[in-house]
Amino acid sequence: MNRTDVTELIVTTRIQKRMSWASVATAVGQSKEWTTAACLGQMAMSAEQAATVVGLFDLPDEALLILQAVPYKGSLPTAVPTDPLIYRFYELVAVYGTTFKELIHEEFGDGIMSAIDFRMNLTRESDPAGDRVNIELSGKYLPYRQY
Amino acid sequence: MNRTDVTELIVTTRIQKRMSWASVATAVGQSKEWTTAACLGQMAMSAEQAATVVGLFDLPDEALLILQAVPYKGSLPTAVPTDPLIYRFYELVAVYGTTFKELIHEEFGDGIMSAIDFRMNLTRESDPAGDRVNIELSGKYLPYRQY
Amino acid sequence: MNRTDVTELIVTTRIQKRMSWASVATAVGQSKEWTTAACLGQMAMSAEQAATVVGLFDLPDEALLILQAVPYKGSLPTAVPTDPLIYRFYELVAVYGTTFKELIHEEFGDGIMSAIDFRMNLTRESDPAGDRVNIELSGKYLPYRQY
Amino acid sequence: MNRTDVTELIVTTRIQKRMSWASVATAVGQSKEWTTAACLGQMAMSAEQAATVVGLFDLPDEALLILQAVPYKGSLPTAVPTDPLIYRFYELVAVYGTTFKELIHEEFGDGIMSAIDFRMNLTRESDPAGDRVNIELSGKYLPYRQY
Amino acid sequence: MNRTDVTELIVTTRIQKRMSWASVATAVGQSKEWTTAACLGQMAMSAEQAATVVGLFDLPDEALLILQAVPYKGSLPTAVPTDPLIYRFYELVAVYGTTFKELIHEEFGDGIMSAIDFRMNLTRESDPAGDRVNIELSGKYLPYRQY
Amino acid sequence: MNRTDVTELIVTTRIQKRMSWASVATAVGQSKEWTTAACLGQMAMSAEQAATVVGLFDLPDEALLILQAVPYKGSLPTAVPTDPLIYRFYELVAVYGTTFKELIHEEFGDGIMSAIDFRMNLTRESDPAGDRVNIELSGKYLPYRQY
Amino acid sequence: MNRTDVTELIVTTRIQKRMSWASVATAVGQSKEWTTAACLGQMAMSAEQAATVVGLFDLPDEALLILQAVPYKGSLPTAVPTDPLIYRFYELVAVYGTTFKELIHEEFGDGIMSAIDFRMNLTRESDPAGDRVNIELSGKYLPYRQY
Amino acid sequence: MNRTDVTELIVTTRIQKRMSWASVATAVGQSKEWTTAACLGQMAMSAEQAATVVGLFDLPDEALLILQAVPYKGSLPTAVPTDPLIYRFYELVAVYGTTFKELIHEEFGDGIMSAIDFRMNLTRESDPAGDRVNIELSGKYLPYRQY
Amino acid sequence: MNRTDVTELIVTTRIQKRMSWASVATAVGQSKEWTTAACLGQMAMSAEQAATVVGLFDLPDEALLILQAVPYKGSLPTAVPTDPLIYRFYELVAVYGTTFKELIHEEFGDGIMSAIDFRMNLTRESDPAGDRVNIELSGKYLPYRQY
Amino acid sequence: MNRTDVTELIVTTRIQKRMSWASVATAVGQSKEWTTAACLGQMAMSAEQAATVVGLFDLPDEALLILQAVPYKGSLPTAVPTDPLIYRFYELVAVYGTTFKELIHEEFGDGIMSAIDFRMNLTRESDPAGDRVNIELSGKYLPYRQY
Repeated sequence: MNRTDVTELIVTTRIQKRMSWASVATAVGQSKEWTTAACLGQMAMSAEQAATVVGLFDLPDEALLILQAVPYKGSLPTAVPTDPLIYRFYELVAVYGTTFKELIHEEFGDGIMSAIDFRMNLTRESDPAGDRVNIELSGKYLPYRQY
Repeated sequence: MNRTDVTELIVTTRIQKRMSWASVATAVGQSKEWTTAACLGQMAMSAEQAATVVGLFDLPDEALLILQAVPYKGSLPTAVPTDPLIYRFYELVAVYGTTFKELIHEEFGDGIMSAIDFRMNLTRESDPAGDRVNIELSGKYLPYRQY
Repeated sequence: MNRTDVTELIVTTRIQKRMSWASVATAVGQSKEWTTAACLGQMAMSAEQAATVVGLFDLPDEALLILQAVPYKGSLPTAVPTDPLIYRFYELVAVYGTTFKELIHEEFGDGIMSAIDFRMNLTRESDPAGDRVNIELSGKYLPYRQY
Repeated sequence: MNRTDVTELIVTTRIQKRMSWASVATAVGQSKEWTTAACLGQMAMSAEQAATVVGLFDLPDEALLILQAVPYKGSLPTAVPTDPLIYRFYELVAVYGTTFKELIHEEFGDGIMSAIDFRMNLTRESDPAGDRVNIELSGKYLPYRQY
Repeated sequence: MNRTDVTELIVTTRIQKRMSWASVATAVGQSKEWTTAACLGQMAMSAEQAATVVGLFDLPDEALLILQAVPYKGSLPTAVPTDPLIYRFYELVAVYGTTFKELIHEEFGDGIMSAIDFRMNLTRESDPAGDRVNIELSGKYLPYRQY
Repeated sequence: MNRTDVTELIVTTRIQKRMSWASVATAVGQSKEWTTAACLGQMAMSAEQAATVVGLFDLPDEALLILQAVPYKGSLPTAVPTDPLIYRFYELVAVYGTTFKELIHEEFGDGIMSAIDFRMNLTRESDPAGDRVNIELSGKYLPYRQY
Repeated sequence: MNRTDVTELIVTTRIQKRMSWASVATAVGQSKEWTTAACLGQMAMSAEQAATVVGLFDLPDEALLILQAVPYKGSLPTAVPTDPLIYRFYELVAVYGTTFKELIHEEFGDGIMSAIDFRMNLTRESDPAGDRVNIELSGKYLPYRQY
Repeated sequence: MNRTDVTELIVTTRIQKRMSWASVATAVGQSKEWTTAACLGQMAMSAEQAATVVGLFDLPDEALLILQAVPYKGSLPTAVPTDPLIYRFYELVAVYGTTFKELIHEEFGDGIMSAIDFRMNLTRESDPAGDRVNIELSGKYLPYRQY
Repeated sequence: MNRTDVTELIVTTRIQKRMSWASVATAVGQSKEWTTAACLGQMAMSAEQAATVVGLFDLPDEALLILQAVPYKGSLPTAVPTDPLIYRFYELVAVYGTTFKELIHEEFGDGIMSAIDFRMNLTRESDPAGDRVNIELSGKYLPYRQY
Repeated sequence: MNRTDVTELIVTTRIQKRMSWASVATAVGQSKEWTTAACLGQMAMSAEQAATVVGLFDLPDEALLILQAVPYKGSLPTAVPTDPLIYRFYELVAVYGTTFKELIHEEFGDGIMSAIDFRMNLTRESDPAGDRVNIELSGKYLPYRQY
C-alpha cells in the first residue's frame, strides 16, 4: 500500500459515505482548502490529523504512517490538464502569466510569490447575474538575493 | 506590423520611459490587472483605450486599429513556463488543481469557474514575517447544462 | 471501484446487451448526445438518472453514487487523437480554428462560445450523393469583461 | 513571398481597412466560412477568387498565383491551442470525442464524417438568457471499405 | 473483456497455433491486408466474420460481439514508432510527405487521398539483386468542396 | 544561401512560372516522384541534374553545388503532420503499421522494407465511383543479420 | 504470456542464476551482442536458439514459439533515455550526428549505414590511464536509388 | 556574429570550395572525425586550429575567437532526428541501448562509457556483398564511486 | 520480482518501521546520500551492502541479487518534475545552466563535471533568518580529448 | 532592443574582449556566480551594476534600463538540455531527485529548498586523481504552512 492507494481509498469512500470536504476539514481542524489537498495526496499530515483521517475514512492501519510521510506532489495526469474546470486555471496562467509577473515585479521588485508559504480561501459570492467563485491566494513575497 | 510587434514596442518603451503599469491603467481608466493584460496582447481595447495607449507609448498610427482587434491569446512561450515567478502559478494548478475541482463541485455542482467573465485584484499585504502577495480571483460559476 | 471502472462496465455491457445509445437516452430522459457523454464518464448524473443507468447496465450498487459525482473529464488517451473518426474533428479545429475565431469575433466581439452552457444535436441527412452527418453545436456567447 | 506572407498581409490589411469577413465573402461569392478559411491560408482559390482577393486587399501581383496553389494546411501554432476561443473547440473534441464516435457508429456503422466533403454555417441565435453561437457542421459519411 | 484483450488473445494464440495471416484471411473471406488489420483491432467485423475468427482462435463467447463493435483505432504505442520496420513507413511520410502532396494536387487539385475508402495489396517481387516488398495503395480522391 | 533557401526559391518560382512537376521531371530525366522529392530538398542531385534545375528555375549560381550536396532530410514541420493530405498517410501508418509488420514478417521473416533502395509511382485510376489515387511502393527487403 | 513477459522472465532469472551474457551467447552459438539483444526482446530466434534459451532460463513451453516470432522492437521507455550509460550513446548521436552524416556522405555519397545488415563488437581495451570500452559498429552502406 | 553564424559560413563555403573534410582535417592536424565535429560547432579549437580554419574558409576576423570559445553543443534540430542517416544511429540506441548497458556492466561493473574522453574512427570496408561503413567508438570506462 | 518492486518495498517498509535514512546509511557503511540513492534504485550494491539492506527491510531472498544488479537509472516519472522540492533543482538547472557552463569552462576549459565520479553532501546550516539547506556537489573534471 | 539582444551582445563582446567572468564580477561587486547569471539574462541589476556592465561591454544606452528590468528567466533552449555539461546537472536531478527529496524531508520536514533565497559557489579542488569541480548550493529551507 502506497500513498496513491490511500488517496484512491479516500476518494471512493468519501463518495460512498457522502461526506463533504468541509466536514472533513472541521474534523481535522484545518481549512477546507488545506485539508482537501492533504487528503488528495499533496500535503503531509501530523500524527493527529492522520489518525482523524484514518478514522473518518475507515482506512487500514498502515495508512496512519503513510499519511504522515511527505508525498510526491503533483495531482494531475498530464502537463496540460484536460478537465475543463482545472483547465480554466491553467488558461489563467497562460493568458495572465506575464501580467502576474509585471505587476508583482512592479510592486515588489525581482522575486516571486511563494507557493509554499501560501494559503488560499475559496468562497461563493452571491450575484444576481449568477453566483461567482471567489478565490483568495496569499503567498509570501520572496526576493531574489544577490551574493 | 502585427499585434506581436505592438506588444514588443509597448514593453520596450515602457522600460525606457519608466512608466508604471498603475499609471498606464489610470490613463486607460481600467484596473491595472486588465490594463496590463491588454497591453501585453491578451485583450481587445476600445477605440478610446487604444488611442490612449498609442499616445502613451508613442506607437505608430496603424497600432490604433491593431489594439482594437481581438488578439490570438496565450502569453507564454512554452506549455510549462520556465520563469520562476510564473511557474509558481503553474505549480499551484498542478498541486491544488484537484482541490479546486473538489471544492467548487462541492459548493456549486458540476460546472466551472469562468475564465472569461472573470476579474482579479493583486495587492500587497504588509506582514511582519515578510510582506505577502494577495490575489483575489473572481469568476462567474457556469453550470453544465443537460439537454 | 472508480469512475473509470464504471465506464468500462457500461461500455462492455452495452455491447453484450446490444442496447443502442438512443434507447439508453430515452430511458434516462435526456438527449442521446448528453446521455452518451454521461455514460462515457464526462458528465455527472442526477440520482434518478444514475439509478436508471445502474438498472440498465446491471451495475453494482456502489456505482449509484459514483455516477453522481463529478468526473475528471477528458475522454481521449492522447493529446492528438489517433482514431480516424475523432481525428477528423481535431483536424477541423486545426484547419478552421482561426476561422471560428475570426467569425465569432466579427459577430460578437471579444469573447468565446461556451463549452459548458452548450448543447449539440447529431443527425443523419439523406443525400443522393451519399448521406451526411450533421452536427449542430450551440453554445452561449460569453463576452470578456473589463474591470 | 510565400503563402504565409500573403496571409499576414491579408490579416493586417483587413484590420486597417476595417473590412468584415462577410463583405469579403460577398465579393468572393462563397460563404463567409469558406472565404475566411481560404483567406487565412487553408483553401486554394480559383483564378477569379484570387483576383478578387488581390484587389480587395491591395496584394502584390505574385499573390495571384500563390492564392491558387494548394497551401500546407493547419492554422494553429501549437498542438493544443492556447487561445481560449479556439481551445473551447479542442475541449469539445476532448470531452465529446468518444460521444461523436459512438453516435456516428450507431447511426452509420464503421466509417467517419468527412472533413473534406464538408461545409459549415455559423450563426447568432438570439436568446433572452444571452445570445448563442450556433454552428452547423455537415460532412459526408464515408464508410470503411472491406476488400 | 474489451477489444484490447481480444486482440492480445488473437496475437498470442496465432503464434501458438502457427497459423498464417493468409490462412486466416481465406477463412474470413477477405484480403489478408484487411483481415490482419481487423484481427489487430483496427476494423469492425460482420457477424459471420466475427464467428469465424472466434472459432479459429478459440476465443470466449463474449468476443463475438466485441469483434463487431467499431474499435478505437490506432495500433502504435507512440507517435513516432520505434519498431524499425514500421518506422521506415513513418520515414517515407517524413521524407516524401510534401512530394505526395505536390503530385496529388498536380494531378487532382485540392483534396486528399482517402484513408477510409482505401485498399492495399502487399506482394513479394522477385529480384536477382534481392527480393522486394511491393505495396499498392489505392484510395479514392476526395476534393475539398466550396460552399 | 543554404538548401532551405534553394527549396523555397524552387517552390515560389514554380508557382509563378506555372510549371508542372511532370515537366520538371522530364527535363531532369528521372521520375516525377524522385524529381519532386529532390527539388523539395530531400535528395542529392548529379551535376547535370542540378544544372538543369538551376536553369529551369533561374536559380543563382551557388545553387549549383548546393543541389549536389546531400541535404538534411525530413520535409515536415511537426512530428504529427497537420496538413490533411499528408496526415492521411500518417494515419495509414498509425492504423496499418502493425499490419505491415505482420504481413512482411510472414512473407519474408525478420527484416524491413528499405526506405532507401526504394521507388514509388503515383497514378490516377479512373473509377466511375470517383477516381482513385494509386501509389505503388517498392522497397528492397533487408533481412536482419545474425552474427 | 507475450514477449514482454518472456523478456522479464529472462532478465530476472539471469540475475538469480548468475549467468553471464557471454555464457548464454556461447550456448546459443552467436555473438554476445546479438544474443543479448535477442534475449532482451529485440531479435527473432531460430527454433534451435529458442529451445536453448528456454532451457537455460527454465521458461514455460509457450515461450518456445514466442521467441521465434518477430518482436515489436525498441528497448527504451522514453524517447530521450534517462539511464546515464544509455544516455551517453544518445549524446553521441546528438553531438556527432551531423559529423556521421558529413563523413559518410563524403566517403560514400547519398545513402545510409544500414542498422539492419549490421553487426557490432564490444570489447575492453586495457589502458594505463583507465580501461576503455571499445565498440565496433559495422553496417552495410545503402545508396539512395534514383528512378 | 555568433557560433551558429560561423558554422553556417563553414558549411556553405565548404560546398562552394569543394573542400573535403579529410583535407580540412589534414590542415588542422587532427582526425577527420574531431575536425568535422569542431567545424560543425561541437568542439572548442585551439588558437592555431582556429587560425587555420579561418584561413581555409575565408571567415571574418571575429570568428578567430568564437571558434576558441566552448560552444553550446547539440547538433540536431529535434529530439528524434528526422534525417534517415542520423536516425539509423538513434535507432541503434533504441534497439541496442539495453544491450550496451548489459554488456558494459557485465564486463566493467556499474559505470558508463565516457562520451567526453572519447574518440572515434570511421572507415570504409570493402565487401563483395556491398561495402560497409565501419565505426570504432572508444570511450574511457568511468565507474560510479561510492562515498 | 524486479528492481522496481524492491524499491517499492523499501519505501513502504521504511515508513512503517520509522527508520531514518541516516540510520540505514550507518548500517550500510556509506554516506546517507549514496545509500538513499542506492535504496531508491539508482545504484548497484555490493553483496554485503545488499545483505544488510535485505535484513533491515525484511526483503525476500531474491532481492539479494537484484540489489547487486545495475539498475535502469532515472528516478522521476516525468521529464519536468512536478514535485515542488525536486522542481526547484530543475529550476536551478534551467536558470543557472548557462552560468554553470560559463564558469566551469572559464576555470577548466572544454569539458564537463562528471556525474559518475561524483559525490555530494547535504547538511543543515543554522541561520537566524531561517535554517538553510546546504548541498556540496563534487565531480571530477573531465576534459574533452582531441584525436 | 530587448533583453535577449543585450545578452547576445554581452556574450559576443566578452569573447572578443577576452574578459573573464571573474573580472566582470569584481567590477560589478558581486560573486562571479550571480554576476554571470545576471549578464546571461537571469537576474535584474541595480542602476549601478547596470552602468558598470554597460561600460564594460560597450552596450548602447538603452541597455541601461533593460538590465534593471526583471527578465523572463530560463536560460536553456529545450526542456531536456542537449549540451553535455549542462545535461550532467539535469542527470543529477533525474538520478538523485528522489534522494534530495527524502533527505531534505528527513532533516527538515515538509517543505523545499528555496531557489530564490539561494546562493552558490563554484570552485576548483586540486586532486592528484584529476581536479574536481566543487559546487556549494545554499538555499533557505521553506516549510509548507498549514492553514
